[in-house]
Amino acid sequence: MPQTPVHSAIVTAEGHLVDSQILKSIFDRVIERGGDFEVQRFDLGRTNDDFSTLTLKITANDEASLARLVEDLIPFGCRPTGEENALIRAVDLDGCAPEDFYSTTNQRTQVRVNGHWTDVARQRMDAAIVITDAGAVCRKLRELRVGDRVVCGLEGLRITPEFRDRERSDFSFMSNEVSSERRVEASVARIAKTMRDTRTRGEKIVFVAGPAVIHTGGVQYFSELIKNGYVNVLLAGNALAAHDVEFSLFGTSLGVDLEAGTPVPGGHRHHMRAINAINRAGSIRKAVESGAVANGIMAECVRADVEYVLAGSIRDDGPIVDTIRDIVIAQDRYSAALASAGMVIILSTMLHGIGVGNMLPAWVPVVCVDINPAVVTKLADRGSSQTVGLVTDVGLFLHQLVRQLS
Amino acid sequence: MPQTPVHSAIVTAEGHLVDSQILKSIFDRVIERGGDFEVQRFDLGRTNDDFSTLTLKITANDEASLARLVEDLIPFGCRPTGEENALIRAVDLDGCAPEDFYSTTNQRTQVRVNGHWTDVARQRMDAAIVITDAGAVCRKLRELRVGDRVVCGLEGLRITPEFRDRERSDFSFMSNEVSSERRVEASVARIAKTMRDTRTRGEKIVFVAGPAVIHTGGVQYFSELIKNGYVNVLLAGNALAAHDVEFSLFGTSLGVDLEAGTPVPGGHRHHMRAINAINRAGSIRKAVESGAVANGIMAECVRADVEYVLAGSIRDDGPIVDTIRDIVIAQDRYSAALASAGMVIILSTMLHGIGVGNMLPAWVPVVCVDINPAVVTKLADRGSSQTVGLVTDVGLFLHQLVRQLS
Amino acid sequence: MPQTPVHSAIVTAEGHLVDSQILKSIFDRVIERGGDFEVQRFDLGRTNDDFSTLTLKITANDEASLARLVEDLIPFGCRPTGEENALIRAVDLDGCAPEDFYSTTNQRTQVRVNGHWTDVARQRMDAAIVITDAGAVCRKLRELRVGDRVVCGLEGLRITPEFRDRERSDFSFMSNEVSSERRVEASVARIAKTMRDTRTRGEKIVFVAGPAVIHTGGVQYFSELIKNGYVNVLLAGNALAAHDVEFSLFGTSLGVDLEAGTPVPGGHRHHMRAINAINRAGSIRKAVESGAVANGIMAECVRADVEYVLAGSIRDDGPIVDTIRDIVIAQDRYSAALASAGMVIILSTMLHGIGVGNMLPAWVPVVCVDINPAVVTKLADRGSSQTVGLVTDVGLFLHQLVRQLS
Amino acid sequence: MPQTPVHSAIVTAEGHLVDSQILKSIFDRVIERGGDFEVQRFDLGRTNDDFSTLTLKITANDEASLARLVEDLIPFGCRPTGEENALIRAVDLDGCAPEDFYSTTNQRTQVRVNGHWTDVARQRMDAAIVITDAGAVCRKLRELRVGDRVVCGLEGLRITPEFRDRERSDFSFMSNEVSSERRVEASVARIAKTMRDTRTRGEKIVFVAGPAVIHTGGVQYFSELIKNGYVNVLLAGNALAAHDVEFSLFGTSLGVDLEAGTPVPGGHRHHMRAINAINRAGSIRKAVESGAVANGIMAECVRADVEYVLAGSIRDDGPIVDTIRDIVIAQDRYSAALASAGMVIILSTMLHGIGVGNMLPAWVPVVCVDINPAVVTKLADRGSSQTVGLVTDVGLFLHQLVRQLS
Repeated sequence: MPQTPVHSAIVTAEGHLVDSQILKSIFDRVIERGGDFEVQRFDLGRTNDDFSTLTLKITANDEASLARLVEDLIPFGCRPTGEENALIRAVDLDGCAPEDFYSTTNQRTQVRVNGHWTDVARQRMDAAIVITDAGAVCRKLRELRVGDRVVCGLEGLRITPEFRDRERSDFSFMSNEVSSERRVEASVARIAKTMRDTRTRGEKIVFVAGPAVIHTGGVQYFSELIKNGYVNVLLAGNALAAHDVEFSLFGTSLGVDLEAGTPVPGGHRHHMRAINAINRAGSIRKAVESGAVANGIMAECVRADVEYVLAGSIRDDGPIVDTIRDIVIAQDRYSAALASAGMVIILSTMLHGIGVGNMLPAWVPVVCVDINPAVVTKLADRGSSQTVGLVTDVGLFLHQLVRQLS
Repeated sequence: MPQTPVHSAIVTAEGHLVDSQILKSIFDRVIERGGDFEVQRFDLGRTNDDFSTLTLKITANDEASLARLVEDLIPFGCRPTGEENALIRAVDLDGCAPEDFYSTTNQRTQVRVNGHWTDVARQRMDAAIVITDAGAVCRKLRELRVGDRVVCGLEGLRITPEFRDRERSDFSFMSNEVSSERRVEASVARIAKTMRDTRTRGEKIVFVAGPAVIHTGGVQYFSELIKNGYVNVLLAGNALAAHDVEFSLFGTSLGVDLEAGTPVPGGHRHHMRAINAINRAGSIRKAVESGAVANGIMAECVRADVEYVLAGSIRDDGPIVDTIRDIVIAQDRYSAALASAGMVIILSTMLHGIGVGNMLPAWVPVVCVDINPAVVTKLADRGSSQTVGLVTDVGLFLHQLVRQLS
Repeated sequence: MPQTPVHSAIVTAEGHLVDSQILKSIFDRVIERGGDFEVQRFDLGRTNDDFSTLTLKITANDEASLARLVEDLIPFGCRPTGEENALIRAVDLDGCAPEDFYSTTNQRTQVRVNGHWTDVARQRMDAAIVITDAGAVCRKLRELRVGDRVVCGLEGLRITPEFRDRERSDFSFMSNEVSSERRVEASVARIAKTMRDTRTRGEKIVFVAGPAVIHTGGVQYFSELIKNGYVNVLLAGNALAAHDVEFSLFGTSLGVDLEAGTPVPGGHRHHMRAINAINRAGSIRKAVESGAVANGIMAECVRADVEYVLAGSIRDDGPIVDTIRDIVIAQDRYSAALASAGMVIILSTMLHGIGVGNMLPAWVPVVCVDINPAVVTKLADRGSSQTVGLVTDVGLFLHQLVRQLS
Repeated sequence: MPQTPVHSAIVTAEGHLVDSQILKSIFDRVIERGGDFEVQRFDLGRTNDDFSTLTLKITANDEASLARLVEDLIPFGCRPTGEENALIRAVDLDGCAPEDFYSTTNQRTQVRVNGHWTDVARQRMDAAIVITDAGAVCRKLRELRVGDRVVCGLEGLRITPEFRDRERSDFSFMSNEVSSERRVEASVARIAKTMRDTRTRGEKIVFVAGPAVIHTGGVQYFSELIKNGYVNVLLAGNALAAHDVEFSLFGTSLGVDLEAGTPVPGGHRHHMRAINAINRAGSIRKAVESGAVANGIMAECVRADVEYVLAGSIRDDGPIVDTIRDIVIAQDRYSAALASAGMVIILSTMLHGIGVGNMLPAWVPVVCVDINPAVVTKLADRGSSQTVGLVTDVGLFLHQLVRQLS
């Protein structure tokens, strides 16, 4: 393998490199990008508990390709030997980063400033890293202000990919393939266990829910989850609240009588009347407190003081006054509500599910339940090993979940 | 509307023409085919119970178009005024019909022979009508023998489309659209009621089931349905039996431990060992009677004397000796088992479901359950108003069904 | 609404009642709601061009049921005999309607004020009707202001359901079932013809497009549509613009090289850099005019002065400065852009597609193209006969469309 | 299998262990099954061309678990150190194997007989290995005869998993995830290249096709592929032939006029008339040679002497006399036709696609094209790295393929 010293670099990585497919991914990237590699040293962890360490020499045709290649290996935990500080540039325009800003992944990240490695706070994907007096922190582009010190380039960065821990819990073993041909009852048992463990650890269980929860008959079961303390935060949109209140006021969901399974007279107008009723009351909370809305998911949230955030979208009717019309504010509210989440369960909503996935660090376990395998695949693909997908009927899933939690 | 007497015809129809969309369909066909119509007389039933009657003059550009147009209206119950006997030709080659043979629909059909209208027996779609001494009967092309007298052309035929009866039962009201956003528990209640009614009437409940019944954890629930007398016939393929026996012998389905939800060591070989075990015993019945297979769907069928027919396919492993390798024989066995079916429930199998749909007359109610909406749509499209589609998880559906039947 | 002590009412309707399934729907509703009907007079149009007229007596168990039943028949064009003026109430709270406000459908509507029937302007579904000095107009609940005069109850309203016109155009004949087993090339030919006709009539062709247009390789073809004048308005979200600019700057879409079909080094950061580049420029228009973005869909829109509206959503990265963050403003902008639409084509976006469907009157033809049949079904279900669904690959569809339009 | 009293064993493996995820899979299995491992030696290939070698000590709680664990590692190429001959037992019952027979995978396999390692011929999954005078060969259970010498247990077996060769060809780089959001034109380019290469090497290109090829307008394009010599074998079912002949005779497919996209009068009878026409002629070949069937896929196959095999199924109409009614014979004919396949392309048929997948060794590249992602996922999951899945419209795909091949 002929090569010049100019176009090669030495990178190192350590961790459960084999188990987590990281080693394979590193090799793949090098070859895919037209580079070459030579393993200078590889110590495979002798047992399941030991880390492996790798020293790899990579070669590319020119300087620019080599730089891009090194950049591309960073998400896998590789870092150039010979430690340098991160390159920091000041923001020159509100809401914009320098052109070569480092855009984050959702993996644990450290940055080297003044010779010291610092953890990056509020880890999420697609953010810039800002160095403040209090340390390093992820910021969205729109939050940048002139003078903010932003990490640029690829030096002085360490990523720690989430290792798939074989023995950590039942949970991680579920994360295989997306299939509708599964015994859901077995999966529900594991999810129930993870929920109990999360509660025991004092961490928040966050639900992200679409209106199919109502349509498929899940109101009763979801209400029980709230009463039993298994819902700490509810992230949703206008439609969930509108149809929940519609069901409470009229017994219908999108005009369909959920007991009889058939449309009722004038039912197509029910959701607009439900929205009007809440807006007349002034808010969901006031409508519940006044007795106008006596039961349902939103009423139980109000009574149990469960935080709920309703994000607006282009397809909203109304919207209900509680719905946040500005999506930037909605994102900030979602993000704040997810701050100490120990577990996230997404029920039948690709829109809000992807929104939440964008905000979460890689180490929070996520369960995604949808009858459409394409939605489950899309949500599971984004994340890392922590996402479990379940292709099943959401109403029947909630029924099972309540049974197995009680 | 200029027209010549030569290219027009008068047809009549009667029944619930409006409710069942038949009137609309008749008009649509005439216009689509480039013809014209003039309503000569239309008596709309005054109440929900009364029939409507229609006399319609249709016009086309030439004789051939007019003949094709009349032919095309026959499935909607239209018949030319001026009653003629059916044209009958003798078969001249075994297994083949005359070129202009009348190919049946699955609707109730009468044929006029020697001035008398006779009901056609064993109604099914895509068959020829043979006039025998015992009357008129549907025969598949392959069953035709030289000398058989086959109905040809379009004269002397009366079709009675199945009218959608609004008040007949809860069942017919479910037959609307295919959607995954439904409260399945409400639909299960109706299906359970129809099953009880069918049993009370002494008619057979026929299940058509694919291997997803096993994969999704349905064995226990389906076994209970058998024990409680709700399964009279089971139509399936090699895979259902193979995975059922695999689950009985090894606790796995396609190598996945259904309790733990994870693959077990060597599990990919389990289904071949299950097949080998049955074939060594000589048959499923012998394997059950010898105690080699102690439980599961096939064992319960043997014990409860439920008729089962396993049809072979190109993707079969083995096959199990009970599996019928010749698909013509398998079709005949399926067809015989369906002879007095009062209700058919198709669980997660497009292949066998379509096979069964081809054999059924239009008046047998069919329930189709699948998590894939495309399968439900495809099966529901073929039939008439009697097919109810349910997009849901089959394992959880069976759980619900057992609960609501007990 | 005159009626006898036995709770019955007379309603009348006229139009292509049979062809458009309206008659059937009327009967269905009456029976479903537990009422009875008696046809007092029915004149079936003699030919395809003639209207039918119906006089129907309906009966219910009590006054309230009868009122609901009459309400429920209004969308089918039924109106109580004996014409009364509409009931009008004043708004007492900004953004809220009186409790019994009439919530609109998307069908042509007339309202009777001071003895005169007036057309309702800006027809859309889920709105209130406000009587102003300039006439009657649809208003969203949030647009209502104290003192506005809103139509309440069900008196004095006439709906004219869109009749499915068999001979109007090729277009209406496509609107049958949703299926992936179709010859798309034949459908594209009809869509191309409808586009040409729309342009000839001087009406706007509006595209609603999701980012899959970019991922599936549609940029080149969509750009040609713009250059050739077949795109008058583009309604989309942040992602379409971000990935279009990413493709223009880096040749990738979501980091995938569209020529090679494989991910490129650092590609996951490209969309953030694209967003940053636009935001630094100040807007898409400025980025194009400065030459920073040289080609792609957004660049062609800027050059051809095609109006584009980007609606924000909870899952947006960035967002781009052009993206409208407030969904109420975005809805108003969408709605204004749709004002004189002659045809709408929705490409791979359920979110924006449903948003647009909510705003459109029933008579604007809509084409919905998506590879996911569930999306096509959902969009086609909402509308009336004017929606054509096509289950196919969007990139290849656009390629075909360009070929057939040139 | 030497081991210490604490139930441990030493196994070795070599190959591209990291790239192909084999190392990870080995570790996963050990831990999943409750065992432990200790890496005694691991030599990572220094460059992309070098093999890696592994010596691993595995430990389990008892003898039986250890044996199952070793068995479970065999498919990954692990073999116990200390070479023993394979255990061979004689068949005692026609059509059945000894209970502990070794059931094959589709990977390259060697067996040790009399101290010599021999390649196993006719490799396929789910077979028994029979030792004959001519060597070792895969046999289906049903082919076993009394006295046949069958490999049992797990000793004396070597599996060589297919290594994913990064640089072998463009083909292997496509085999990533199943998604409908792809630029199909780029994938078609690669498939076309692989087809040309296969032809150049003198290997067979085998198509497996369902009737959607006809429905989606693919007849013209598929016919061109045949004429241009890109189809060596066609594996299909009754429906493909029936609808192809229907299209040739009547211009319809399932009664739909493919030019107009609408149903034609009496069209539902066309496919039965097509079947009757062939059966009267005596065979597809005779119908083509007599001129009764002038064009279409089957006619081009006859003219170009392309081998075709039609396998029967429970849902067949007719069937056509060419259709093989016995599925065991059909499997044997399919299997023989696949004998020297260099490439297999599956178009819109899960049934026949799975059948073919069961028969193929792991090293034959397979392309699976279907608009339903569930079908693509199911077919791609079965195989190894050689399966490429494409979610797209089959008719438009064939159009593109013809363009890029010419």
